[in-house]
Amino acid sequence: MAVNLIAPQAADLYPVAGVELGWAQAGIRKPGRKDLLLIRLAPGAQVAAVFTRNRFCAAPVLVAREHLARAQAQGTGIRLLLVNTGCANAGTGQRGIADARRSCEASAAAAGCQAQDVLPFSTGVIMEALPIERLVAGLPEAVARLAADQWLGAAEAIMTTDTVPKARSQQVSLAGCKVTITGIAKGSGMIYPNMATMLGYVATDANLAPALAQTMVARVADGSFNRICVDGDTSTNDAFVLIASGQAKMPIIESTEDPRYPSLERAVTEVARWLAQAIVRDGEGASKFIEVRIERARSQDEARAVADAIARSPLVKTAFFASDPNLGRILAAIGNAAVSDLDCNAVQLFLNEVPVARDGGRDARYREEDGQRVMRGAEILVRVDLGRGSEATSVWTCDLSHEYVSINAEYRS
Amino acid sequence: MAVNLIAPQAADLYPVAGVELGWAQAGIRKPGRKDLLLIRLAPGAQVAAVFTRNRFCAAPVLVAREHLARAQAQGTGIRLLLVNTGCANAGTGQRGIADARRSCEASAAAAGCQAQDVLPFSTGVIMEALPIERLVAGLPEAVARLAADQWLGAAEAIMTTDTVPKARSQQVSLAGCKVTITGIAKGSGMIYPNMATMLGYVATDANLAPALAQTMVARVADGSFNRICVDGDTSTNDAFVLIASGQAKMPIIESTEDPRYPSLERAVTEVARWLAQAIVRDGEGASKFIEVRIERARSQDEARAVADAIARSPLVKTAFFASDPNLGRILAAIGNAAVSDLDCNAVQLFLNEVPVARDGGRDARYREEDGQRVMRGAEILVRVDLGRGSEATSVWTCDLSHEYVSINAEYRS
Repeated sequence: MAVNLIAPQAADLYPVAGVELGWAQAGIRKPGRKDLLLIRLAPGAQVAAVFTRNRFCAAPVLVAREHLARAQAQGTGIRLLLVNTGCANAGTGQRGIADARRSCEASAAAAGCQAQDVLPFSTGVIMEALPIERLVAGLPEAVARLAADQWLGAAEAIMTTDTVPKARSQQVSLAGCKVTITGIAKGSGMIYPNMATMLGYVATDANLAPALAQTMVARVADGSFNRICVDGDTSTNDAFVLIASGQAKMPIIESTEDPRYPSLERAVTEVARWLAQAIVRDGEGASKFIEVRIERARSQDEARAVADAIARSPLVKTAFFASDPNLGRILAAIGNAAVSDLDCNAVQLFLNEVPVARDGGRDARYREEDGQRVMRGAEILVRVDLGRGSEATSVWTCDLSHEYVSINAEYRS
Repeated sequence: MAVNLIAPQAADLYPVAGVELGWAQAGIRKPGRKDLLLIRLAPGAQVAAVFTRNRFCAAPVLVAREHLARAQAQGTGIRLLLVNTGCANAGTGQRGIADARRSCEASAAAAGCQAQDVLPFSTGVIMEALPIERLVAGLPEAVARLAADQWLGAAEAIMTTDTVPKARSQQVSLAGCKVTITGIAKGSGMIYPNMATMLGYVATDANLAPALAQTMVARVADGSFNRICVDGDTSTNDAFVLIASGQAKMPIIESTEDPRYPSLERAVTEVARWLAQAIVRDGEGASKFIEVRIERARSQDEARAVADAIARSPLVKTAFFASDPNLGRILAAIGNAAVSDLDCNAVQLFLNEVPVARDGGRDARYREEDGQRVMRGAEILVRVDLGRGSEATSVWTCDLSHEYVSINAEYRS
């Protein structure tokens, strides 16, 4: 069902020096599927991350935040990332914290580092205890498989309701030095800006100062994973992690003023944005990929408010599912965004190149067959010109289908 | 499909002295259905209203606001309410305004008042021009039918995707004087607090000072129509109108300090709340009626934020549709509400009487079969104890079903 998204080939995914990946079938929730992933980092790697803002954040998020903060404060390194699917270890109270700590201890022992050097991540059903024994039992298999060429298996190992593994790789030249960027992501429901149910890991061999890694991860998230919406729900677990192994033969980048910094950030953003859009393309039940672009807003905040109001409207999303150009619903969604002094007569709405509305009503040039033609396509641009400023933004979303209801009604069965 | 909601009988709906209703089959969108309603008020009636906060509000909303403001400022009366279904006359620009004004002129002429004494209301498809000729042609039929006993026909005449007409009546004694309250409402999709796609008209023969009518309509809306959520979308058209005809033989109520005022407000709120809950029971595709009750919040605002986060979560709503006690989704929704200093360990979650979560995780007393049993019912109470204050609130919502997608994918066909 994914919209114009096909599985990557292993050969398309470049290894990143200093980063090894190993997966296992640990039977966390169901037997016979990859559900455990280790990412082992060579000494000296910089790791930075942004996490869910959900107040009911999961136990592994609490532990990962703690370990990352300590590593950043003390200048020690993160050496291992541990990811399981099948159980979110969220809404699990003190026992959940203890289980997350134990998973760090066990994986550190298996992979040869300290428990505090491990960042744990979980995704899956909420409010069920982590089957820690099965997780621990799966670790030797994952360790045995650790290798730099396991990115595709890693992408498969973090899938939950995803139908297609999501991985992307590219290389860029920074002042003559070839740098590699490879990333994976998962997530297809409970997707909403600010770290929805998704996990994303992007690694580069670029040599980046520690403080810059944190700057970059936040900026990249803002241009990628924080711009997608499947259903408006934000999860308890999600995280985007940037790894800079520093193994490329290049002088360290110490400042955003370094001319290599913007090139690197752009390339990392491209990989992250591809992954984020892949999550929407594989959104639960998605049959359309929709870019909502807001132009001539007075501020980024108001552009974003209008974009989000459209992208999360169930009425707009079901109209897209039906290919029904019931486009007044988009005007209603714009009117719902909290832009208190919006002049509706200055707003223009376009569907791809088709002018739909202006002067507070239907554009005289609009014809139903044009709207219908655009709505039938699998890739649609909703463009709104607010006519009140010079700021622009885009978010990406999908339609709301019968399949979405089916998937989420039967998720646990 | 409506949840425990049956059509009222005409005999259950008390006439309100000074209020006549007349409907017609005007063929606004489709022939052969009641789609036009007039409510004629005797001189001296007080009318107050609250309208949608959507910035793309419809032409009739703009005109109704203008006429009501003028009547309130000049002390002249509103004499006629005009309602059509089939076309929202929203997103229709200057032409829409002209059509709304023309509908006021034509109906005023037909019913014997001035155009500025008319409040127009429309509901239906957005961004299509009002078929004003058909509306005008239907007026004589509606005028001919004007009578005090036409509340049921009136309820039927304002239905769109509603499957059951919604009307409610009750009588209350105020200091020995019997007062009647009768109301109708419509709306089953695009329902969200702050005047979602709904129209509500509640009339009483109580004798109420003009300023008090406006106070009461806002307070009653806050306790009824502003507490319901079907899909989180807010419409361009909606309105709740309170009519106080003043025909009951009683001294005027001039102040909220008058002991009769709270009794009257309570009774009007009961009628409005019944109508609001009826809208949720008849929500598009609804198979469950869910009350979300938040207790021990620090403020009304935060109670409301948490209630809304649960009531509008598609993941929570699909879980209810499936009768799947995937209750961690409720914790995730609580965590999504913008209560920045929420202590998850203090939160308790109950489903009806079943304890579900506490201390940040599953309640030790919780058993899956208990959750399953509650989820299978048609009426469910989700009760959240935030453990941080003394404020409480309730909102009402329904589940998200396949039927919702079907209805909204095919709305215009």
